[in-house]
Amino acid sequence: MQKDIGHRAVRVGIVGASGAVGEEFLALLGEAALLLSEVRLYASERSAGRKVAVGGGVVEISVLSPGCFEGLDIVFFSAGKHISRQWAPEAVRAGAWAIDNSSAFRMDPSVPLVIPGVNDSALDACESPCIVAVPNCSTIVALVAVTPLHRIARVSRMVISTYQAVSGAGAAAMRELEAQAHDYAHGRPLKSPIFGRPCLFNCFSHNSAIGESGYNEEEAKLLHETRKIWSDSEVRVTATCVRVPVLRAHCEAISLEFASPLSPEAAREALANSPGIKIVDDRAANAFPEPIAAAGRDPVLVGRIRGDWSLAPGMGLSLFVAGDQIRIGAALTGLNIARAILRRSRVPT
Amino acid sequence: MQKDIGHRAVRVGIVGASGAVGEEFLALLGEAALLLSEVRLYASERSAGRKVAVGGGVVEISVLSPGCFEGLDIVFFSAGKHISRQWAPEAVRAGAWAIDNSSAFRMDPSVPLVIPGVNDSALDACESPCIVAVPNCSTIVALVAVTPLHRIARVSRMVISTYQAVSGAGAAAMRELEAQAHDYAHGRPLKSPIFGRPCLFNCFSHNSAIGESGYNEEEAKLLHETRKIWSDSEVRVTATCVRVPVLRAHCEAISLEFASPLSPEAAREALANSPGIKIVDDRAANAFPEPIAAAGRDPVLVGRIRGDWSLAPGMGLSLFVAGDQIRIGAALTGLNIARAILRRSRVPT
Repeated sequence: MQKDIGHRAVRVGIVGASGAVGEEFLALLGEAALLLSEVRLYASERSAGRKVAVGGGVVEISVLSPGCFEGLDIVFFSAGKHISRQWAPEAVRAGAWAIDNSSAFRMDPSVPLVIPGVNDSALDACESPCIVAVPNCSTIVALVAVTPLHRIARVSRMVISTYQAVSGAGAAAMRELEAQAHDYAHGRPLKSPIFGRPCLFNCFSHNSAIGESGYNEEEAKLLHETRKIWSDSEVRVTATCVRVPVLRAHCEAISLEFASPLSPEAAREALANSPGIKIVDDRAANAFPEPIAAAGRDPVLVGRIRGDWSLAPGMGLSLFVAGDQIRIGAALTGLNIARAILRRSRVPT
Repeated sequence: MQKDIGHRAVRVGIVGASGAVGEEFLALLGEAALLLSEVRLYASERSAGRKVAVGGGVVEISVLSPGCFEGLDIVFFSAGKHISRQWAPEAVRAGAWAIDNSSAFRMDPSVPLVIPGVNDSALDACESPCIVAVPNCSTIVALVAVTPLHRIARVSRMVISTYQAVSGAGAAAMRELEAQAHDYAHGRPLKSPIFGRPCLFNCFSHNSAIGESGYNEEEAKLLHETRKIWSDSEVRVTATCVRVPVLRAHCEAISLEFASPLSPEAAREALANSPGIKIVDDRAANAFPEPIAAAGRDPVLVGRIRGDWSLAPGMGLSLFVAGDQIRIGAALTGLNIARAILRRSRVPT
């Protein structure tokens, strides 16, 4: 029996409230027309006690403790997979939905992996509050752009190269890149405690562990999460994930192969009519998606839409996309999951 | 009848001597064990009169003028396609080889397009001094890395995403990015006279014109030049060319499809035994090709060598490569063409 939280003010918890994604989630909550009756913020001991302006009031950040989720409707987790693994089940036991931005539960067959607008129906599996996983940022940015085309022509294979902002590695990584620009300008040596290599004026393979296959975890997520989100165990995905000296917003060059033909014109029309997408594709002005234009904004920017001339006509298409990976790639998708849950809770199950 | 310039000191001209590539060519000439008896430097009026240290002496930069190439053996052109179109034939008329780094003659069927080590035999077409074209930087970096694999397994299709340094747009573009870092650090607005958009902390589609197909010129070069260099009109190439805030050295994520199977192990061995390549592929240390490691160095760095799990086993492979596009992508390849010409001129034709 699902609690009816659609008709009343919502009580929300944020775990990882002092992190880049947690702060963004809190900011988005303020913008969203959600009636909130309570917000509780959780972070590590380092941030505990800090007071944060929320709506009209002030909320003090606390540490997680047994029973801390009692009375909440929705708890958003963005404090790493270890915290999620331990505490998300606690939130569910306390009767709350746990929206988890970590990788802890994404591939758990019993946990829906959801991008609202892409696969909302995955929430059907939850008859009562449960854990819902937010996909990895690169997957979200890719699938918001590609799913409208997949629905028409079925994507059989994707080749993806990413241009990922440092913010994917957290707020401290953004500060590291900013500090490197300052040090460079003042003729000081660059310090790289987080990445272990200069990020300014450099790019490098994504800093996640590499498996037997030679693919790193970030690349493997693009395959496995896409298959789960599309409920399509056949789709093939190969990716190369690369960090670039960008503060915020990921770009991806995506080459699609289709099972049935789709013209660039039909693709453009489908994309223009899809939520969460803004087409930026002005060939004459050479104006296409850029991370600084995507940063701090909701839509995934999609451009460089062109038929793939290395495939039979209509059977392939290339795109270049940019999306703010803290926003649509994490916090906004988490908030949209919360909205979808609230919409659904209005309907008796 | 070919002049025998293999046994004696060589007389060289450099057109575009004050540009990034011209300066690099001059520096490399100093390192190369070439016996030079004369060096003449040419540039626009802006640089004319400037004195440049060359070997033990000093050479004054002059402007191009009728008859200026008389007595030279080799003239290296890197001053844009308009200068090349007008003056490279002049050099040949004066009895010199014109090694042209511009796009003016690359696709001219009568002009060899050469990457030494890849397709030296294309020089066979020249019975006497002629124009020899240096391929575009992105093509050179890709084909130095891929050709050893193409020879074994025949590449049927390549999907390439580039991470291109601003220096591809000239020395002034490097200064623009450096100035942006300074302005950022001092809280001043960024100025972007060359690219028209911030380069610092941003990336954007390559700033070349876009054709009917939706591909830009840089991407089209990767297809057409590859076909010409490999003498293979069947190979299919799709590319997305992107500028990143890197000063020098291009990276490329390359996904290969083969006509016959090739294991990652066999590929690694072939690459390790190929000239001009350094394998940087340490999965445990997450150490792979980076532009700052390639900058100022000769070899193309090749890493992330892995079987493509989106294709049948052995039928595809992915790489990430980095190469200094001023050096191997332009000046060094030009110098290597000069060396190949000199080697060949020792053999009576």
